[in-house]
Amino acid sequence: MTLQERDKKHLWHPLTQHKLYADHLAITKAKGALLFDDRGNKYIDGIASWYTCMYGHCNDYITNRVANQMKQLDQVVFAGFTHEPAIKLSEELMKILPKNQQKIFFSDNGSTAVDVALKMALQYHFNKGEKRGKIIALENGFHGDTFGAMSVSGLSIYNGCFEDFFIDVARIPVPSKENFESVKQQFIKLLETTNVAAFIYEPLVQGAAAMKMYDAHLLDELLGLAKQYNTLTIADEVMTGFGKTGKYFASEYLVNQPDIICMAKSLTGGLVPMAITSCTQNVYDAFLSEDLVKGFFHGHTYSANPIACTAALAGIELLQSDEIKEKIKRLIASHQQFDKHIKEHPKVKETRQLGVIYALDINVNMERYGSLRDKLFKFFMNKGVFLRPLGNTIYMLTPYIITDKQLEKVYNTIEEALEIV
Amino acid sequence: MTLQERDKKHLWHPLTQHKLYADHLAITKAKGALLFDDRGNKYIDGIASWYTCMYGHCNDYITNRVANQMKQLDQVVFAGFTHEPAIKLSEELMKILPKNQQKIFFSDNGSTAVDVALKMALQYHFNKGEKRGKIIALENGFHGDTFGAMSVSGLSIYNGCFEDFFIDVARIPVPSKENFESVKQQFIKLLETTNVAAFIYEPLVQGAAAMKMYDAHLLDELLGLAKQYNTLTIADEVMTGFGKTGKYFASEYLVNQPDIICMAKSLTGGLVPMAITSCTQNVYDAFLSEDLVKGFFHGHTYSANPIACTAALAGIELLQSDEIKEKIKRLIASHQQFDKHIKEHPKVKETRQLGVIYALDINVNMERYGSLRDKLFKFFMNKGVFLRPLGNTIYMLTPYIITDKQLEKVYNTIEEALEIV
Repeated sequence: MTLQERDKKHLWHPLTQHKLYADHLAITKAKGALLFDDRGNKYIDGIASWYTCMYGHCNDYITNRVANQMKQLDQVVFAGFTHEPAIKLSEELMKILPKNQQKIFFSDNGSTAVDVALKMALQYHFNKGEKRGKIIALENGFHGDTFGAMSVSGLSIYNGCFEDFFIDVARIPVPSKENFESVKQQFIKLLETTNVAAFIYEPLVQGAAAMKMYDAHLLDELLGLAKQYNTLTIADEVMTGFGKTGKYFASEYLVNQPDIICMAKSLTGGLVPMAITSCTQNVYDAFLSEDLVKGFFHGHTYSANPIACTAALAGIELLQSDEIKEKIKRLIASHQQFDKHIKEHPKVKETRQLGVIYALDINVNMERYGSLRDKLFKFFMNKGVFLRPLGNTIYMLTPYIITDKQLEKVYNTIEEALEIV
Repeated sequence: MTLQERDKKHLWHPLTQHKLYADHLAITKAKGALLFDDRGNKYIDGIASWYTCMYGHCNDYITNRVANQMKQLDQVVFAGFTHEPAIKLSEELMKILPKNQQKIFFSDNGSTAVDVALKMALQYHFNKGEKRGKIIALENGFHGDTFGAMSVSGLSIYNGCFEDFFIDVARIPVPSKENFESVKQQFIKLLETTNVAAFIYEPLVQGAAAMKMYDAHLLDELLGLAKQYNTLTIADEVMTGFGKTGKYFASEYLVNQPDIICMAKSLTGGLVPMAITSCTQNVYDAFLSEDLVKGFFHGHTYSANPIACTAALAGIELLQSDEIKEKIKRLIASHQQFDKHIKEHPKVKETRQLGVIYALDINVNMERYGSLRDKLFKFFMNKGVFLRPLGNTIYMLTPYIITDKQLEKVYNTIEEALEIV
């Protein structure tokens, strides 16, 4: 039996209607920017396996470090104990996080990082004697799949039949030049008349909403308002973090820094799962008390797993290396060149770029998971490029280490794809 | 600066009131059943680092396999793609899971495995055109820290100020000979008069509730009733799974098998985080449809991470080996011997054992995180044994591979500890 046939017997894949999408392509190997299947084909990983493997698949620098760590210390309870990989990681993160971030709390994926952030915000006010139960979020935001994370996500396909079970969230439109006065008034009214614990947002780029981008100065004004009302601000940098916007974190484009930041995905360079929720000293201090239960009684078994911390440390070293910095610069410039050329194409409705994140919308209506989208996906795969169009949006978020030749191929394939829609 | 001092600067530990517990012991190395600190001391890991490292810390068989996998395939999107480590793991799990389990869905920790199970159960009924919104859970159950998992957990210290945000849960007492008729009537009334989507339980042993144990035949009767009302049953085997009860899964002690099983912790042998929610063909089939949105739109980025799948595969091979089977048998017999001796001790109120899980209650009242509990904890650590008393309960859940000499030391230390309370 082939791997694909064996796959069908017992595996339930994420985000998949198996009746309509029964076949899953078997990947046997990955290296650098390439994925290899069991039929001898190779594919350029145009989205870095959901924005994780930014330093390339099976990166020797990371895997060698992890191989050593596995011989030394695999896992230990992180309540009552500590270890050097977690300590060193916290120190290295302090060097690249916005300056106001002072404490880090571990979990295992982006969804739990968001659940942790929401619980921190709710308990922060509770510990200060204020009962604030509402969260403000942006329309079309996506923050994950656990019940808390789903509650603040606005993309309805992910939420389905669960909306009765959500925590209390008010949603405002993503700010734009056109709607800003109205959004601002709506935001102020919420801050004034309801007890808002926190405002959560994906800074500057909404990933799952097809890399929709919005202006830093508009977000900055909202963040300033939130601070006036002592509403905590939560930046979900799960997708944007670790260099993708051209800065270590998207929040660096802003004057007003968040109280809490969520990180995951490329935190560990694509090797193993881990997430972090960082926060300010002020947030942390609200949990310090002689009263035991004012502490934060959240804890996953593998919190601060030494293997994952080691992968993260190696990844952050790479991120700060001249080599990766150069590669990021080159990608940004290269995308800009491509953009100049492609945005004039008659099939292109709009293009947008921030750092190494590049997206273009085709001027044809498509469903998020419709047949035209599937046709595009298959076209890309047949050409040896893994891209995952979202409706009529084609986006690239390649590993930083993609070669010039591979990048050229991605560009050409996108241009060819415009001919088939 | 020492590791302990550096730890204090930026790390926020799980389940910790930092004002009362500022110091975290720095662990630098682990091997087999031993943890080593940065002061040259060693400790027997009496709870297998929260029931994860059952085959021993830094187990060569597991780490060698993972080292090879890291060179081959680190990570790939699990929607649209598949890979051998996930396929093989699903096949191996089928050999040890209860026979009615047919499909497996990946996530990253026990909490998300529970959130997935709850979402599966809610959407199962929704997809069949029935709106069932209530979940039944046991008092003092613990299922995790995300909002969904918290909702079904009954241990109040973990839920704190978040109860306003919970999904709709009805709680019944843990069944016992004394209360069974009343519990049964309460259960039937809930099943009859409200729309119950699922009943979730930790089978036979409630871990965080200090290893409280209850009878298989009482649980079996409740499961039988749930099935009559087409209420799905969810076994949370995050703690009990993979041999700890003397069988692969605690559910094997029951006639009525669950519709859904949650697994994590020792699934990956203590190396890296991963979780699985398995289910019956019947549950899976309810999501198959020409209608896209009847699919299960849940998906974590690192779902089915090949590194974690490889660790799990190696762990399951060890679990099925004659060597580990022998070690488990020996542990069970050894605990029984110890029990005969210690249960006569005047300070011992009650003892209980299932498989390699052993707990004894001291006949002194203690708070869950009180000063007497702390005194006990420190006594154990000073003697070189890591045990984590929960209130007046001392429990052991050592790695299967603990040596006889190490085990003897744990027993003796527990007996000595009874003299200081």
